[in-house]
Amino acid sequence: MLSLDNPTFERFAFYSGIAIGKTLLMSALTVRSRLTNKIFSNPEDVAGFGGKEIIGDERVERIRRCHQNDIENVFPFVLVGSFYVATDPDPWWAAVLFRTFVISRCLHTVCYLMPVPQPSRFLACMTGWGVTAVMAAFVIRAGRV
Amino acid sequence: MLSLDNPTFERFAFYSGIAIGKTLLMSALTVRSRLTNKIFSNPEDVAGFGGKEIIGDERVERIRRCHQNDIENVFPFVLVGSFYVATDPDPWWAAVLFRTFVISRCLHTVCYLMPVPQPSRFLACMTGWGVTAVMAAFVIRAGRV
Amino acid sequence: MLSLDNPTFERFAFYSGIAIGKTLLMSALTVRSRLTNKIFSNPEDVAGFGGKEIIGDERVERIRRCHQNDIENVFPFVLVGSFYVATDPDPWWAAVLFRTFVISRCLHTVCYLMPVPQPSRFLACMTGWGVTAVMAAFVIRAGRV
Repeated sequence: MLSLDNPTFERFAFYSGIAIGKTLLMSALTVRSRLTNKIFSNPEDVAGFGGKEIIGDERVERIRRCHQNDIENVFPFVLVGSFYVATDPDPWWAAVLFRTFVISRCLHTVCYLMPVPQPSRFLACMTGWGVTAVMAAFVIRAGRV
Repeated sequence: MLSLDNPTFERFAFYSGIAIGKTLLMSALTVRSRLTNKIFSNPEDVAGFGGKEIIGDERVERIRRCHQNDIENVFPFVLVGSFYVATDPDPWWAAVLFRTFVISRCLHTVCYLMPVPQPSRFLACMTGWGVTAVMAAFVIRAGRV
Repeated sequence: MLSLDNPTFERFAFYSGIAIGKTLLMSALTVRSRLTNKIFSNPEDVAGFGGKEIIGDERVERIRRCHQNDIENVFPFVLVGSFYVATDPDPWWAAVLFRTFVISRCLHTVCYLMPVPQPSRFLACMTGWGVTAVMAAFVIRAGRV
C-alpha cells in the first residue's frame, strides 16, 4: 500500500528522499564549481558573473557526468520502487534492497569525485543498477499484460 | 493519501502535470529548431531531412541545456513531491510550495530562452531547487531508516 | 486507485516496468560498448581498463543519445501516468495508451541503434511523446489549481 501506514513504504520514502537529496546536491556542486572556477556555458552568465564561456572543462564535466549517472540510476530506482512497494514485498528483503541501493550510490559519488581507482566506481554503479533491475523484474511479474 | 479525493494530491497532480507538460514542450522546441535550422546529430537524419550533421550548434544547444535543467529539477520535484503529499502536509503550505515551484520553473525557461540577463535565471533555478530540497527534508524526517 | 487491486494500475505497473527496464538496458549497452571499444571518459577508467580517453566517439555517443531520449520520454510517461491512473480512466483506452507508448519506445530504440532510415525514428518518438502529452492533458484537467 502506498501510504506511510505501510512500514515498507515508510522505508522507501526515507531511502528515496536520501537518494534524490544526494542527486540534488550534484546541482549545488556544479554551481559551486562554475562560480569558483568562473566556467560558464552561456554568454549572459559570463556577462553577469565574469569568467569565460567554456564547454567541456574537466572540473565541471566530472561533476556533471556523476550527476548524469544519478539521473540514469536514481530516478529509475524511485519510479520502479514505488511499483515494487505496491507488490507488497517481504519487508526484510525490501529493506536490504533499499539500503544496498543508497549505500552503493553514495559510494559511487565518492569514487567519482575523489576519484578512487577503478573498478570501484564500476562495481558501485553495477550494484545500484542490479537492485533496480531486480525490482523491475518483480514489478513486471506482478503486473498485467 | 495518494488519491484525487485528497485536495493536496489534486493540487499536486495539477502542478506536476503543468511542470512535466512544460518539460515535454522542450522536446518539441528542440525538434522545431533542428528542422528549421537543419542541424542534426545523426547521418540518417541528414539523409532524411537534409541539412548538416553538427554537434554543439548554439541554436539547438541552448534549448537542450534548458531541457536538461528541467530533467534535473522537475523530475525530482514530482518524485519527492509524491512522498511529501503522503506525509499529509499542511494544505496551505503545500499549495505555496507547488505554486512557487511551477512559477519559478516557467520563469527559468523564459530567462534561458530569451535570454534575460543574470542573475535572474540563477535565482529562478535556486527557488525551484529550494522547494524540492525542503520537501525532501520533510520526507526524510517522516520516513523510517 | 494506486494499488494492484486496480486492473488499470496493474497494467500500468507492467508497461512501466518494461519501459524502465528497457531504459536500464541502455546503461548496459553503453558499458559493453565502452569496454569492447576501450573508449572512456575518465583517466582512472583508462588506468583500470586500458584503452583511450575519448569524448564524443560515435560508437558510444549513438547509444547515449538513445538513452537520453529514453530519459526525456520514459520518465515523464511513468510520472504523468501514475496521476493519469489516479483519475480513474476508461480501462480500455488506458490499455491502448500504455501499449502504444511501450511499442513506440521499443521501435524507437531499434530505429536508433540499427539505424533505420528516417522518418521512422521521428515517428516512433512523436507517438510516445503524444501518449504522454494526452495523459498530461487529462491530469491537468482533473487536478486542482
